[in-house]
Amino acid sequence: MTEALPPNPPAIILVRPQLGMNIGAVARAMLNFGLTELRLVQPRDGWPNPEAGPSAAGADNVINGATVFDSVAQAVADCHLTIGTAQTTRDMVRRVTSPAAAVAEMQALPAKSALLFGPERTGLVREDLLHCHAICTIPSNPDFGSLNLAQAAAVMGYAWVMGHAAPPPTWMVNHEGPAPQAELAGLITTLEQRLTQNGWFNPAPGLTETSRRMLLNVFTRPGYTGAEVQFLRGVVRSLSQPRRDAKRAATAAPTQHD
Amino acid sequence: MTEALPPNPPAIILVRPQLGMNIGAVARAMLNFGLTELRLVQPRDGWPNPEAGPSAAGADNVINGATVFDSVAQAVADCHLTIGTAQTTRDMVRRVTSPAAAVAEMQALPAKSALLFGPERTGLVREDLLHCHAICTIPSNPDFGSLNLAQAAAVMGYAWVMGHAAPPPTWMVNHEGPAPQAELAGLITTLEQRLTQNGWFNPAPGLTETSRRMLLNVFTRPGYTGAEVQFLRGVVRSLSQPRRDAKRAATAAPTQHD
Repeated sequence: MTEALPPNPPAIILVRPQLGMNIGAVARAMLNFGLTELRLVQPRDGWPNPEAGPSAAGADNVINGATVFDSVAQAVADCHLTIGTAQTTRDMVRRVTSPAAAVAEMQALPAKSALLFGPERTGLVREDLLHCHAICTIPSNPDFGSLNLAQAAAVMGYAWVMGHAAPPPTWMVNHEGPAPQAELAGLITTLEQRLTQNGWFNPAPGLTETSRRMLLNVFTRPGYTGAEVQFLRGVVRSLSQPRRDAKRAATAAPTQHD
Repeated sequence: MTEALPPNPPAIILVRPQLGMNIGAVARAMLNFGLTELRLVQPRDGWPNPEAGPSAAGADNVINGATVFDSVAQAVADCHLTIGTAQTTRDMVRRVTSPAAAVAEMQALPAKSALLFGPERTGLVREDLLHCHAICTIPSNPDFGSLNLAQAAAVMGYAWVMGHAAPPPTWMVNHEGPAPQAELAGLITTLEQRLTQNGWFNPAPGLTETSRRMLLNVFTRPGYTGAEVQFLRGVVRSLSQPRRDAKRAATAAPTQHD
């Protein structure tokens, strides 16, 4: 038992979970460590799932309060810091952090954060991790590193409770932390629209998808603040202004000084 | 993943486990964190249990290598340091430690240690904890503190791997650590025999049992070294020497100076 549980816990996001029993077991582990907000992205067998109840073992408020999303993007929309649990970095450039460091970061952030767990069979895939600012790897046996979903949740829950004692990392000039993912998604959507209008996207569907992922990736990774996202929107707007408007502005400008 | 797993891992002892599925899940969690020696005390449904296989998810060497014992005393007989996981101290005087401190203690001990987990429904009871030098409490939600067996094992496994980085506590003059529990059991058996011979035990069965528990308790808690246990055996032998021998020795002594 502990005197006080850490405040402002992250949302726990299960991405495409397969077994109801595991969802229930995750709920139990969550409540054991003071985590209560469960989000499900495309649960395989739908939701609610009667198989979740028994393994939740009394964590009914977590199960009953769970919310369902159609995509990872929607599930993390209001989250300022998103950390995905995975054993490898899946050949992508992402900051890798430890359970203790991940929770310290979340506890230092005065805003909503999220911890993502992948499906039982595969874990989070590259497509999911594109939405994450960092990857959290639980140290484990190099020869047998695949953890059960609920056991991984328990380890992260334990780290969450323990992290309370650790001195939090400080934010320098970036006290507000990353913007919620929805703001970033707005920027990326605008960017995609403008690029499409300008014919930048290759019409081949495969390449278009690759370009979309590249955009998501390069804009998610830095953890831009809300002000920075706004700035970038301005940059995009300015850059993509139709050339005839630019000409008009250039020719119109001198008249303002008349 | 981690570069190197800590050496000399403790035996994991499941006391009266109820569900085969949980035994398998514990085996998986163990191997995830480099723990391989599983001991079972009176598994409810016998052993081997076919329900353990699927949840072990490939941790076959742990399952196949598991050994079964009739009592906690037998299961801990060769262990120099025994730590039981429990959320409360069950109204007994026992040192309470944290996961991180418990594994640091084990990693500093150049001898076999054991980590005990109780049955799913009750956890370790007082009778089991009498065999433990310390109680390890996983910090958790005061209002929902009952962890799933395998999730508790995963948390302790994670602590085991993480503890490798922590500076170990040092033993002062007691470098060898506590004696194996079998040596202590030998002392207590001798003590019981002598006390019985001397009529110290109350013939009422209930009181006899209480006295036995008291003996186990007061001699387990200090974590005596092998040398101390030997010393105490000498004390018991000396104290319980039949009085006529003592008289004979007293009267015989002067003759040695003749």
